[in-house]
Amino acid sequence: MLEELKEKVLEANLKLPEHHLVTFTWGNVSAFDKETGLFVIKPSGVPYEKLKAEDMVVVDLDGNKVEGDLNPSSDTPTHAVLYKRFPQIGGIVHTHSTFATSWAQSGRDIPCYGTTHADYIYGPIPCVRNLTKEEIDEAYEKNTGKLIADYFEENNRDVTAVPGALCKNHGVFTWGKDAHEAVYNAVVFEEVAKMAYLTEQINPRVSVAPQSLVDKHYYRKHGENAYYGQKGSHDGR
Amino acid sequence: MLEELKEKVLEANLKLPEHHLVTFTWGNVSAFDKETGLFVIKPSGVPYEKLKAEDMVVVDLDGNKVEGDLNPSSDTPTHAVLYKRFPQIGGIVHTHSTFATSWAQSGRDIPCYGTTHADYIYGPIPCVRNLTKEEIDEAYEKNTGKLIADYFEENNRDVTAVPGALCKNHGVFTWGKDAHEAVYNAVVFEEVAKMAYLTEQINPRVSVAPQSLVDKHYYRKHGENAYYGQKGSHDGR
Amino acid sequence: MLEELKEKVLEANLKLPEHHLVTFTWGNVSAFDKETGLFVIKPSGVPYEKLKAEDMVVVDLDGNKVEGDLNPSSDTPTHAVLYKRFPQIGGIVHTHSTFATSWAQSGRDIPCYGTTHADYIYGPIPCVRNLTKEEIDEAYEKNTGKLIADYFEENNRDVTAVPGALCKNHGVFTWGKDAHEAVYNAVVFEEVAKMAYLTEQINPRVSVAPQSLVDKHYYRKHGENAYYGQKGSHDGR
Amino acid sequence: MLEELKEKVLEANLKLPEHHLVTFTWGNVSAFDKETGLFVIKPSGVPYEKLKAEDMVVVDLDGNKVEGDLNPSSDTPTHAVLYKRFPQIGGIVHTHSTFATSWAQSGRDIPCYGTTHADYIYGPIPCVRNLTKEEIDEAYEKNTGKLIADYFEENNRDVTAVPGALCKNHGVFTWGKDAHEAVYNAVVFEEVAKMAYLTEQINPRVSVAPQSLVDKHYYRKHGENAYYGQKGSHDGR
Repeated sequence: MLEELKEKVLEANLKLPEHHLVTFTWGNVSAFDKETGLFVIKPSGVPYEKLKAEDMVVVDLDGNKVEGDLNPSSDTPTHAVLYKRFPQIGGIVHTHSTFATSWAQSGRDIPCYGTTHADYIYGPIPCVRNLTKEEIDEAYEKNTGKLIADYFEENNRDVTAVPGALCKNHGVFTWGKDAHEAVYNAVVFEEVAKMAYLTEQINPRVSVAPQSLVDKHYYRKHGENAYYGQKGSHDGR
Repeated sequence: MLEELKEKVLEANLKLPEHHLVTFTWGNVSAFDKETGLFVIKPSGVPYEKLKAEDMVVVDLDGNKVEGDLNPSSDTPTHAVLYKRFPQIGGIVHTHSTFATSWAQSGRDIPCYGTTHADYIYGPIPCVRNLTKEEIDEAYEKNTGKLIADYFEENNRDVTAVPGALCKNHGVFTWGKDAHEAVYNAVVFEEVAKMAYLTEQINPRVSVAPQSLVDKHYYRKHGENAYYGQKGSHDGR
Repeated sequence: MLEELKEKVLEANLKLPEHHLVTFTWGNVSAFDKETGLFVIKPSGVPYEKLKAEDMVVVDLDGNKVEGDLNPSSDTPTHAVLYKRFPQIGGIVHTHSTFATSWAQSGRDIPCYGTTHADYIYGPIPCVRNLTKEEIDEAYEKNTGKLIADYFEENNRDVTAVPGALCKNHGVFTWGKDAHEAVYNAVVFEEVAKMAYLTEQINPRVSVAPQSLVDKHYYRKHGENAYYGQKGSHDGR
Repeated sequence: MLEELKEKVLEANLKLPEHHLVTFTWGNVSAFDKETGLFVIKPSGVPYEKLKAEDMVVVDLDGNKVEGDLNPSSDTPTHAVLYKRFPQIGGIVHTHSTFATSWAQSGRDIPCYGTTHADYIYGPIPCVRNLTKEEIDEAYEKNTGKLIADYFEENNRDVTAVPGALCKNHGVFTWGKDAHEAVYNAVVFEEVAKMAYLTEQINPRVSVAPQSLVDKHYYRKHGENAYYGQKGSHDGR
């Protein structure tokens, strides 16, 4: 079942090492199928160079395996919660990419220092708090998803305008309308994280980008007045 | 029309990912044709791996499309102003290359710390101010070009001796006598930006290079007493 | 003798440049054979691109050459001591990998700042002290092994939970149940070292990861309640 | 003439981009021929990908061209002085490699923080002062060579034990018994420069490596009691 989506999820997973976002098996991509309400995700701990489309695992929104010979990613319950709570999204990526994870380890949001960030992300990239021992013991992966979803709700942040979050002392989740866009955003997050780090090293008293510039760039690429790219083109969005 | 120039502009655009100056579609190159007074530029948001010479767009100095099926780069009005105001230049590059953009995000000029810089750029690389909300709302891309051109005029800086500028919280523009030289300078800017960053980390109280050394290196490669390279060679300049 | 193990040790050695862990000949891998009580190690100073399985040297636990035309790695006595003192391990790697060695040069343990670290290493990566002049003069390489082994004993640290150590002003040793796992851990150490460095730059007042998160991630991959990966898979562990 | 040496110098020059030590034409290698008292050097400003053995230029120790169609490297007089003053050396490399040049721009010697440094370089890597305006105007390249040679003489430093120097606000010169070894040392300098930078970032109050460890590592690879590598092997030295 969902053979076409499995191919797309495989392809999206293979993009992670290609873009130098993962070491070994430290990452996973899933994609949601609106018709069936199921999603397809990478199996746990299988090296990218050995992955095949038929290894992909089909899972329901409670995180139960529906089809597949292998165990799904150990982060599956996080994906499940995010799909349930964010009906706008169709693909999710988790990585430990070097610079974004270093921000996560530092426990800081990534401030918006320029248009590279504002072109794709409206406002800072949030770093959500640690789970408590109780939350970890109860259901670590599921509560990670809940924590992210709660953060967006409580802070009135729009998941389509802020396509991802950092988890303190852990790593990065990004999402998008499909697996391809989620991977695209994982690349954006890593590059933005690297430049924000360098920016603060070069000028420790730097300020965030002016709101007028942020608005200009974000809305140049998004919304009804967007004029970047070609009509109907994915990459130009 | 301008088929030969389109080939050169395509080739110059493809050099950007080759030199690791761009991620995805985050950059563009154009070249000016003196005879017709038109310039050729990359289409907006088209991935480099799919670019063909016939995709290149021909534009006039007011930024109007003259020929081409696709939308020109959204930065086209910036290129148009720069060609109009700087008749000495024949090629322009815009990128978000990592280290140069981090300097731009930090809002600082890049000081001249050594001969790698002085071989190609006379004096600091300027970082021009943010546009005001009014300037952004009126004509963002056009006013970006005006801002850069005004800066060079008001500060009596020579566009052939300082082949580019940073835009605060945004990115980098470089130029040259043709598209090839503009790309060459984009590579120089990125390397110089990286080394200036490292230099300040290694010695936070560092001073700029002595003027006598700067003069020696700049004039060893430029002007009538230049003796670097081979006569008539482009790369040796 | 031990022809199969020689092939594995060759393969593991070739992984070092592939993972960018060594420059020139600056690293070595060995593997222990339980049946004979001997180990196989890279010859000293031979470039990786010229290494052949038959060049591998067979050595006993006192560091004496048992078979081989070439001199074994000059670090052989360190490997010998570690195999003797840590019967749990079956493979050892020594490198000067850039980030881990920079921590070693700085003389600091690498704190556990996140789950990338906790997934493979329980607690900080220790940096053992310098040998004294007397210890160096007496038997430098042998005493390096003793120093590491003594550190683990005296500090009650488990060599399977902490699969390596830094040597102050020198470099890195990692180990594992075989040569493959020792190389895997060398990659982990380098990536963890890079991210810990970046984490402290981004937030100089950062704290280590909470113990509850460390325990969750470590025991998600290790021990009887582990549920990461596929049953019986090496890479998923 | 010197056809064999030209091949070796070509090969050594091509190693510079291969080891990521140069951008464009920013580097050169030469080698000295004891019999004729002449040396062979890269032509000025010729891209590495177009270099051929017959392009190499033969020069005498006063820097005069003896054979060749092209201009020799503009740094030729520096090479000439170094060969004249240091009869022990047979190959010289000049680069603007990123990390070593950043130390040069910072105006600091590179301290010996570990065995990676001590394995090849005895004591700190010196950074020689700026030339005065008078020295520059008189004979820039020649006086650069004199400055380096004077530094080694005045400070009693041994050019075989310290195979190179930084020039303040400029770049790096390394040397060796032949062109191959000079390139090898250029790689060592760059890696050592990177790790020394990182070491100080990780621990701003770091101390240099203890002398007993430095002596052990240096003399493990050099001098009559050396035991690293295989007898007669170049790479094992």
